Amino acid sequence: MKKFINDPMNVVDETIAGLLKAYPNHLKLVTGSPRSLVRVDAPVKGKVGICTGGGSGHIPVFLGYVGPGLLDGVAVGNVFSSPSSDAMFAATKEVNGGAGVLYLFGNYGGDKMNFEMSAEMAEMANIPVKMSIAADDVASAPRSEKERRRGVAGIFFAYKIAGAKADTRADLDAVKATSDRVIENTCTIGVALTPCIIPAVGKPNFTIGDDEMEVGMGIHGEKGIERTKIKPADEVAAIMADRVVNDLPFKRGDEVAVLVNGLGATPPEELFILNSKFSDILKGQGIKVFRTYVGEYATSMEMAGASLSLLRLDDEMKKLLLAPAFSPFLLQWK
Amino acid sequence: MKKFINDPMNVVDETIAGLLKAYPNHLKLVTGSPRSLVRVDAPVKGKVGICTGGGSGHIPVFLGYVGPGLLDGVAVGNVFSSPSSDAMFAATKEVNGGAGVLYLFGNYGGDKMNFEMSAEMAEMANIPVKMSIAADDVASAPRSEKERRRGVAGIFFAYKIAGAKADTRADLDAVKATSDRVIENTCTIGVALTPCIIPAVGKPNFTIGDDEMEVGMGIHGEKGIERTKIKPADEVAAIMADRVVNDLPFKRGDEVAVLVNGLGATPPEELFILNSKFSDILKGQGIKVFRTYVGEYATSMEMAGASLSLLRLDDEMKKLLLAPAFSPFLLQWK
Repeated sequence: MKKFINDPMNVVDETIAGLLKAYPNHLKLVTGSPRSLVRVDAPVKGKVGICTGGGSGHIPVFLGYVGPGLLDGVAVGNVFSSPSSDAMFAATKEVNGGAGVLYLFGNYGGDKMNFEMSAEMAEMANIPVKMSIAADDVASAPRSEKERRRGVAGIFFAYKIAGAKADTRADLDAVKATSDRVIENTCTIGVALTPCIIPAVGKPNFTIGDDEMEVGMGIHGEKGIERTKIKPADEVAAIMADRVVNDLPFKRGDEVAVLVNGLGATPPEELFILNSKFSDILKGQGIKVFRTYVGEYATSMEMAGASLSLLRLDDEMKKLLLAPAFSPFLLQWK
Repeated sequence: MKKFINDPMNVVDETIAGLLKAYPNHLKLVTGSPRSLVRVDAPVKGKVGICTGGGSGHIPVFLGYVGPGLLDGVAVGNVFSSPSSDAMFAATKEVNGGAGVLYLFGNYGGDKMNFEMSAEMAEMANIPVKMSIAADDVASAPRSEKERRRGVAGIFFAYKIAGAKADTRADLDAVKATSDRVIENTCTIGVALTPCIIPAVGKPNFTIGDDEMEVGMGIHGEKGIERTKIKPADEVAAIMADRVVNDLPFKRGDEVAVLVNGLGATPPEELFILNSKFSDILKGQGIKVFRTYVGEYATSMEMAGASLSLLRLDDEMKKLLLAPAFSPFLLQWK
């Protein structure tokens, strides 16, 4: 296991320690809750607080999106494991500025159960809480069963747009409605080339041949929909775009935001090669690209692979997508 | 070779194509020069233009730092190969807003030769050009022979600060002086865990044991100063910090900027674990951290590894480091 780590059991706590030392002006730990972080200026009075959370190992998901114009708080668990409901509730209390709190997270059983428990605790503490659950991975279940779909990189769009909506001082119902609308209009598919190693386990989380790729694999190595020989980038891009476009479906005349996300070890150069083809395909289908984001927005540690997310935009989303936002992972100067 | 590519010979051109399709509002190709890119608003009248360039395979170096508050133009070569002097001169002409052009690049023989040839062409075209050459890799030669040192991730600090200096409408000599001062006060060391594969070659650029690391390896796989069994992160961090701190040397009372850079496949989690120790070591030595940057600022495709750069700051540098800047890789909202 070639990793810059000390004790594998301390990976998450040492990651948080290093993050706080890097960005002391931006993030702070919730007192007494070592896995809960909030904006340094939390709570923002009168603004809906937005909390996310989930397993570690996906930076910048989840810790990386806390900041002005984005999220207010986060709770993280061990690598690929849900945080506790106590950690979620600790963050909730810190980010409630009197307008309630939106839980915005990915659709995984453990996370959902714990956020629901945290919401019950919040209710008893008279903090209004609503939930918005990202389920953008089109490979994880057919569209007819979309409540079973997992949340993956497309949650970035919900973070950005819901964060900007909350900054307008919209109320909790309105922020939730915008977030839900983003989630309903976002579709993602991933392709994995290599596994990653959970430090506490010490071996790859799945096996795949040296000449194979897996379409639709989840960000924890969940089984995808097809394993094939690795294909040229243009063919891979066509397979990915086809799955995503036909799912919503995205149609001629739609305006979209595009996220080409690297899962960890895949270099930006390869993401741009994929984007070149995605761009051509969308243009060919009369789907207009409003903005493109290329980089590592949701990772699986050192997994090699990429995902494509498309969001069908409306006028409000376009405005909110471009609103100012800051987090250590997105905007370095402030 | 598990890569999202088409023809290995087209990797660079397809990367540029995908980049331009992603960021059409930020970057443009120089007409007739397919490896030269400039800011979409180039030339900026009355401002010193800053050009960089070098081999491909290091994104965000070099293409990723072109934008307001940063660089004006760039020329890139094949993977790990110098761009041509023609490509550099093509960018030079496009970014000259009447105040001359600074060439800011890393100390490699091919790049230096071609930038010098380009400078001669510029002189014949009555465009004043000066050069500022980054040579921050302390492992590549002893300090007594620092003109032989290679330029690595620390060039980011020179990009940022020289870019902000040029924005003040300082003249060419002043922008060069600031850039040179940053370079003189920047020290970097890298540690590599795995090689990368140049697409056109198709095999790893060096070999290293499954349980080994190499301290001081260059970003093209140049031989380092020590190969050992992989050590715990805290020990690796101590070795890195020791080399960097003692080189300049950085002293008690100095104020520094810290860059913890991932070489490609190393996850952000591990960079933060390293940063936690770097931060403690610097604090213990009375060296004050002004700002920390953690992420992928100069990569070697899918190489696993990390580098530490320290910049000793003065008041002007601190102000310029925090000045607004934008490029697709650094600031996503604008």
